[in-house]
Amino acid sequence: MIRAGVLGATGYTGFELLQWLAYHPHVEIAFATARSDAGKPLSALYPTDLDIQLQAVEDVSLSDADVLFLCLPHGAAQEWAQRGLDAGAVVIDLSADHRLHDADVYARWYNQPHTAPHLLAEAVYGLTEWRREALRQARLIANPGCYPTSILLAVAPLLNAGLLDGATIIADSKSGVSGAGRSPKLGSLFVEVNENLKPYNIGHVHRHVAEIEQELHALAGDHAPRGIVFSPHLLPVSRGILSTIYVPWPQGLSADDLRALYAETYADEPFIWLLPEGATATLAHTVRTNRCAISLHPVPERDQLIIVSTIDNLVKGAAGQAIQNMNVRFGFDERAGLMPVARARVQEV
Amino acid sequence: MIRAGVLGATGYTGFELLQWLAYHPHVEIAFATARSDAGKPLSALYPTDLDIQLQAVEDVSLSDADVLFLCLPHGAAQEWAQRGLDAGAVVIDLSADHRLHDADVYARWYNQPHTAPHLLAEAVYGLTEWRREALRQARLIANPGCYPTSILLAVAPLLNAGLLDGATIIADSKSGVSGAGRSPKLGSLFVEVNENLKPYNIGHVHRHVAEIEQELHALAGDHAPRGIVFSPHLLPVSRGILSTIYVPWPQGLSADDLRALYAETYADEPFIWLLPEGATATLAHTVRTNRCAISLHPVPERDQLIIVSTIDNLVKGAAGQAIQNMNVRFGFDERAGLMPVARARVQEV
Amino acid sequence: MIRAGVLGATGYTGFELLQWLAYHPHVEIAFATARSDAGKPLSALYPTDLDIQLQAVEDVSLSDADVLFLCLPHGAAQEWAQRGLDAGAVVIDLSADHRLHDADVYARWYNQPHTAPHLLAEAVYGLTEWRREALRQARLIANPGCYPTSILLAVAPLLNAGLLDGATIIADSKSGVSGAGRSPKLGSLFVEVNENLKPYNIGHVHRHVAEIEQELHALAGDHAPRGIVFSPHLLPVSRGILSTIYVPWPQGLSADDLRALYAETYADEPFIWLLPEGATATLAHTVRTNRCAISLHPVPERDQLIIVSTIDNLVKGAAGQAIQNMNVRFGFDERAGLMPVARARVQEV
Amino acid sequence: MIRAGVLGATGYTGFELLQWLAYHPHVEIAFATARSDAGKPLSALYPTDLDIQLQAVEDVSLSDADVLFLCLPHGAAQEWAQRGLDAGAVVIDLSADHRLHDADVYARWYNQPHTAPHLLAEAVYGLTEWRREALRQARLIANPGCYPTSILLAVAPLLNAGLLDGATIIADSKSGVSGAGRSPKLGSLFVEVNENLKPYNIGHVHRHVAEIEQELHALAGDHAPRGIVFSPHLLPVSRGILSTIYVPWPQGLSADDLRALYAETYADEPFIWLLPEGATATLAHTVRTNRCAISLHPVPERDQLIIVSTIDNLVKGAAGQAIQNMNVRFGFDERAGLMPVARARVQEV
Repeated sequence: MIRAGVLGATGYTGFELLQWLAYHPHVEIAFATARSDAGKPLSALYPTDLDIQLQAVEDVSLSDADVLFLCLPHGAAQEWAQRGLDAGAVVIDLSADHRLHDADVYARWYNQPHTAPHLLAEAVYGLTEWRREALRQARLIANPGCYPTSILLAVAPLLNAGLLDGATIIADSKSGVSGAGRSPKLGSLFVEVNENLKPYNIGHVHRHVAEIEQELHALAGDHAPRGIVFSPHLLPVSRGILSTIYVPWPQGLSADDLRALYAETYADEPFIWLLPEGATATLAHTVRTNRCAISLHPVPERDQLIIVSTIDNLVKGAAGQAIQNMNVRFGFDERAGLMPVARARVQEV
Repeated sequence: MIRAGVLGATGYTGFELLQWLAYHPHVEIAFATARSDAGKPLSALYPTDLDIQLQAVEDVSLSDADVLFLCLPHGAAQEWAQRGLDAGAVVIDLSADHRLHDADVYARWYNQPHTAPHLLAEAVYGLTEWRREALRQARLIANPGCYPTSILLAVAPLLNAGLLDGATIIADSKSGVSGAGRSPKLGSLFVEVNENLKPYNIGHVHRHVAEIEQELHALAGDHAPRGIVFSPHLLPVSRGILSTIYVPWPQGLSADDLRALYAETYADEPFIWLLPEGATATLAHTVRTNRCAISLHPVPERDQLIIVSTIDNLVKGAAGQAIQNMNVRFGFDERAGLMPVARARVQEV
Repeated sequence: MIRAGVLGATGYTGFELLQWLAYHPHVEIAFATARSDAGKPLSALYPTDLDIQLQAVEDVSLSDADVLFLCLPHGAAQEWAQRGLDAGAVVIDLSADHRLHDADVYARWYNQPHTAPHLLAEAVYGLTEWRREALRQARLIANPGCYPTSILLAVAPLLNAGLLDGATIIADSKSGVSGAGRSPKLGSLFVEVNENLKPYNIGHVHRHVAEIEQELHALAGDHAPRGIVFSPHLLPVSRGILSTIYVPWPQGLSADDLRALYAETYADEPFIWLLPEGATATLAHTVRTNRCAISLHPVPERDQLIIVSTIDNLVKGAAGQAIQNMNVRFGFDERAGLMPVARARVQEV
Repeated sequence: MIRAGVLGATGYTGFELLQWLAYHPHVEIAFATARSDAGKPLSALYPTDLDIQLQAVEDVSLSDADVLFLCLPHGAAQEWAQRGLDAGAVVIDLSADHRLHDADVYARWYNQPHTAPHLLAEAVYGLTEWRREALRQARLIANPGCYPTSILLAVAPLLNAGLLDGATIIADSKSGVSGAGRSPKLGSLFVEVNENLKPYNIGHVHRHVAEIEQELHALAGDHAPRGIVFSPHLLPVSRGILSTIYVPWPQGLSADDLRALYAETYADEPFIWLLPEGATATLAHTVRTNRCAISLHPVPERDQLIIVSTIDNLVKGAAGQAIQNMNVRFGFDERAGLMPVARARVQEV
């Protein structure tokens, strides 16, 4: 058993993480911290029977944790990552603070200087299926954003095969409201979201663009695509992201070649669900699981390929992938604590 | 044409009111005020093409309004009611500040003293169908709460006939989220409300209890019921209130007698929709209209009567009834601006 | 390990049952049958990765099952219950066919004669928490209806203590749409249900009334209540039932006495969640779990007690309670396969 | 006043049409027909107080109608269009039967021969803003599909200016469930749609592709685009379509030029709402109105332009545009019966 600490446990991501960790066979929860709600039981904040007492971060000893999960706002995570490392913990940061390798890029997209740039070189971008090598030795893991996870897993096989050289990738993504967090804001109110669909920060504006394009290049090597056009939409559902991705048809490949490429690439992946020909990925394929569902839709009439991918933004897009990364880092079975048996638990939110 | 002013135009109620007033055949909007959003067009706050500029209340002259609608939080409305009266306007208060006749009762239920108790005696409780006489001369109209409207209209015929003498009335009410207002709070977030149903302040706790019991007695005269048990529930819908009301079966009446009583009582009411035998009122019967739908369900096996009533909390439960009261007060057709039969305006185009 | 067979696996209840059984530590699925979909994999009907092939009932041997779950429409279950018993299986009927002990009552409420009345005497009504004795020996278990489960568990402590003698119990229940089943009907269409709330069969009309009143008497013994007024409402959510129950205040008891009664009665129950004073049960407390959440709300001003209870209609209201009954019958830990504490399985990975 | 007849009045489109027609200043409803529901009042099918009796089509005389609206399934409309013309009525067909000019194309996309090909040449495609000339003389008007309306209005200014020569247009569209009609099918059930998002017929498969590409060419003249990639998604909302459209940036134009082009093109259009720079179209901008909202989003970093457009699929996408076409054809003010004052009416569904 290893001991896990969670900083920032009261948001949707922190709570989701605690629910999965609580039933992980190899983990015990050392502490979970909160700011304004320190001192309260978790059950005062959520309709849960998990028996967890929230503590002030000042009252916990980071060295009690073998693994420290940061569910803090970006900006705040930088300081605590260093403290966690100093205390000897493996740090898994679910914020955006360590995803970008270049401090200047971070500063430009997040409108603030990075206070611990020396960590950016060390941080491993935790897109599990594509970073296992590095993850096994990592001290600091930057857990990917929800949108980037849904998009990168869908196009990685093409990038890795050098088939999107110079291409512009269009990703039309739709996300559930939990992605906006639990702090009350007008745009997250039921009446504003219900019976509506709202595109926001579309084109080349959303902060995840920087993260996505960095990793597109990393995955493509010498055959880098030109970049991405990214359009997030706010969906009237609680959870889930569906990305409808448009790429130019890879010259010289048949639809069967393409399907074979995906099938081989993801053959042994427990959490990648490549749907059979004719099926289309929907939110219902992945909500409340750590899976990413992918379906392929050739459009020969227009020399295009459409890839649909779905994940649960709070699981594979956050807490679940963080645990998957922990499993890799500590040598556990990668599926530990993430199999459907825990499903009954993932009820709240 | 009369001139209407709206104080507090940016909440759901204020916005709803403006949308109806904008197409009222006998009204022009003199001003609409906001606090933090003063100076902005309404279209900066809502996806609307209504061309209305929000002003600071300090910058408007109340005397420009023949009728002044108060869409302010309770507490704040008291001061402005007096100012409106001093400026010679008819004041229609959509807050709770002038519904209770007794300042002590107000203080007890709202945890604050009433700062203008002298107005309580004068204010007319604007349950239109039952207060027309008084409304015609009123200077100050207290617009009923949404829950009270749905419950009082449903039981008034029985009370008025003295058939609930000493009875305990059980009202199990379910409301859409717009009733909670537009200020961001945790309990109104999409993720908290969606796929959930939440009873709150149930029993004899909700502030509307005082208002309901006051009016139950007023309607029943010498044959007052004992009182009410009131259970509000938060529904995952944007608009609408449905109240399922349980009363002891009125001794000596047949189901036909009862139906006849309701049919006669509401025979000429344009906004009371008594459903035929066998039909059941649903939210869909009344959402986005000023109607109240009522269906009667005798339970002879248990000597009980169930009455189901529905309204739109923002229309008949707030803005619509306020306009209906204005129509009565100013001698307009009571339906003016509240039904598509405001055909005159359509013909202009 | 025991072998489980499921007849009628393609409805929401059947599918829910298979999902839980698939991860039960002591069960393997022997067969799952369908009518029109026989021969298809389950994944052709639902977005699932469960690898189950649907068979025609004619092609399976009932004797391959130690326990046979009937997820058939009422009427159809009667014949198959007998066949299952003849094949030596323990039969758990999730339909309404064996809940009523009196064939005449069945015929009256279901408008058809019962074809196997001899089984009614033998069938054990599987409200687990109150029938363990009988369940341990049962050959045929009648799994309770969803509404009755939510209502009976909430009032059983009072009935059992003889505190509702002669009382009329008012149950205002609200249910998610999955309770209406998966066969396409107008009333279950998204557009009909969404943004709506619809009471149906209210008063003393719904078929569950017969089942509820039979069990009220069974639980109360010599201190039987008069009966129930029952008002189901269709909620715009997928899962969950919330019942708001009104009973006359039990004379001579204090609020503390009452809370103590419930606390003692349900002290050791793994699936009954008595909420602390001040908390109110919501759907979110129980959706996707086998729990029943109960909160108590005294109304001293009106000598009434309100009890709020919630369950997931597909879990504690159907598939989950069926598995709980199976666990009791076969001597497994009652929680097996119903809580993440089925940790054993997780440890395998 | 003209007399309007409606064939197929019981679906969502037919009902929507009746609600708007009922309050049109220049129209009286001559008849409304139904198949299985003939003889019933409309209120037996919908929670409405519109007093309309449904008749069997055999029992009405088409010559009683000056304008005949066909809300029939494709295939069925062909026969009745001819009959309506023979009876001297102007026929407005809301089905797909007369949208395609080429009978072979129709046969290929609808898998059945067209039984009245001689009408295809005569039928005017009723995209009102772009076909007024022809509509004024039309005997037979083919009302556009909902998806095509949302897409064509958004790109027409570019096509008309010859700016999409040879381009591939990518339209990622999301539609509410009412677009699927009111006949019960599994895919339209609340539980299937709720909390889900489902792409369907994506790429170059959906029948609207043929209609869209025909009109793209018609609007572009000598500067035809290559064609479209079209991806419809089923949204968990009742009404509304949002299309996110990706086109290559028109060479040599600045963002201001582009905005000016749209502003001039649609300057005097009462139902085209070009949003100001910085705003983004959402469903809430147009639901329950006859408007089409359009917002422009240049992506200079990737030489792309994103156009977002929204309509209400039942109004501008069906019944509303049909009335707008009728207004043009009969010389009424184009806004007659379509102004917001009728809004209060558009409540059901």
